[in-house]
Amino acid sequence: MKLYDSKTAPNPRRVRIFLAEKGIEIPTVQVDIMAKQCQTPDFIARNPMQQLPVLEFDDGACLSESVAICRYFEAAQPDPPLMGRNAREIGEIEMWNRRVEIHFLWPVTFAFRHTSPAMAELQVPQVPAWGEANRGFVEQALAWLDGELAGRPYVAGQSFSIADITAICAAGFMRVIGRKLGDDTPNLLRWHERMAERPSFKA
Amino acid sequence: MKLYDSKTAPNPRRVRIFLAEKGIEIPTVQVDIMAKQCQTPDFIARNPMQQLPVLEFDDGACLSESVAICRYFEAAQPDPPLMGRNAREIGEIEMWNRRVEIHFLWPVTFAFRHTSPAMAELQVPQVPAWGEANRGFVEQALAWLDGELAGRPYVAGQSFSIADITAICAAGFMRVIGRKLGDDTPNLLRWHERMAERPSFKA
Repeated sequence: MKLYDSKTAPNPRRVRIFLAEKGIEIPTVQVDIMAKQCQTPDFIARNPMQQLPVLEFDDGACLSESVAICRYFEAAQPDPPLMGRNAREIGEIEMWNRRVEIHFLWPVTFAFRHTSPAMAELQVPQVPAWGEANRGFVEQALAWLDGELAGRPYVAGQSFSIADITAICAAGFMRVIGRKLGDDTPNLLRWHERMAERPSFKA
Repeated sequence: MKLYDSKTAPNPRRVRIFLAEKGIEIPTVQVDIMAKQCQTPDFIARNPMQQLPVLEFDDGACLSESVAICRYFEAAQPDPPLMGRNAREIGEIEMWNRRVEIHFLWPVTFAFRHTSPAMAELQVPQVPAWGEANRGFVEQALAWLDGELAGRPYVAGQSFSIADITAICAAGFMRVIGRKLGDDTPNLLRWHERMAERPSFKA
């Protein structure tokens, strides 16, 4: 088993943190997105969507989409649970993970892909007005998450989950749009300081 | 338990089809999106993201995000399985559901929300160039899915799954951008004719 990975992209990091929390170690292969290594015939055979990460099984089958890879490992090794232990928790964590993904991670990604000159060849077409709109959505997301974290220690409630992992990766990827967490979102900032103390944060 | 629902939107339909396939019946409450009934204080208390569907439990707790609601029911009533029976299947179905959602359902939705005058008050800001770009992504998705369905009966492989449900809802919602499945995607068209024969299709 091996993981096709990129140290600079947010979605592969979701899987790396998830695996670190599970205590699972697998070999990784670094793929250079900017050098278009996701567009080679070999890579497309592994993932026709030309995206990272990709998990390759020993039988040669490949699994892509970061949450699909996490979900495989959650089913294969349930402890520690990161996606819920019963029907209600499973539903709630899925809800929070999707909210963070759709309203925070995606806007950060869209803002970057549609405004960065470095992405002009990879994001076709680039729609700068969409990128700018997403900078606004990022600000909305930060205010929203700050409010949510005023009342509980983790994004999905009382336990660390994949929803925290997605939020960690979204917050970290804000570097590409020049935004940092600050005193304007104190609850989110304190949550992030606690997340940064976990060994998995460096994954 | 009750489901806040809209007969005109694609995401609530995902849950209705999922429940019909499981043989689960629960009362629904119709919410008029265009009349801004998702923006009332009562609705926001149920889902601060102001979106449908929302599942309300008998204890008053609410679960939103269509896939989160489906995942709750999959865990509460595993048969018939619609999200995989073991780790490998669970990962694969998640991958296909996300691919269909990200590359097909979202582009249809973006194309509608960013170009329809009827959405001007609900989609702020509207970015027409982004809507137009997504019309192109829809065409790419149709060609891609047609190729995938050349070699197998269902989106995620040999069994009906939530990935088919998402594709059914995306294909149906193309009505809002004036696109229909046709002879240019013959495999997708045949798949869709088989899907329309399932009783759940009318849900």
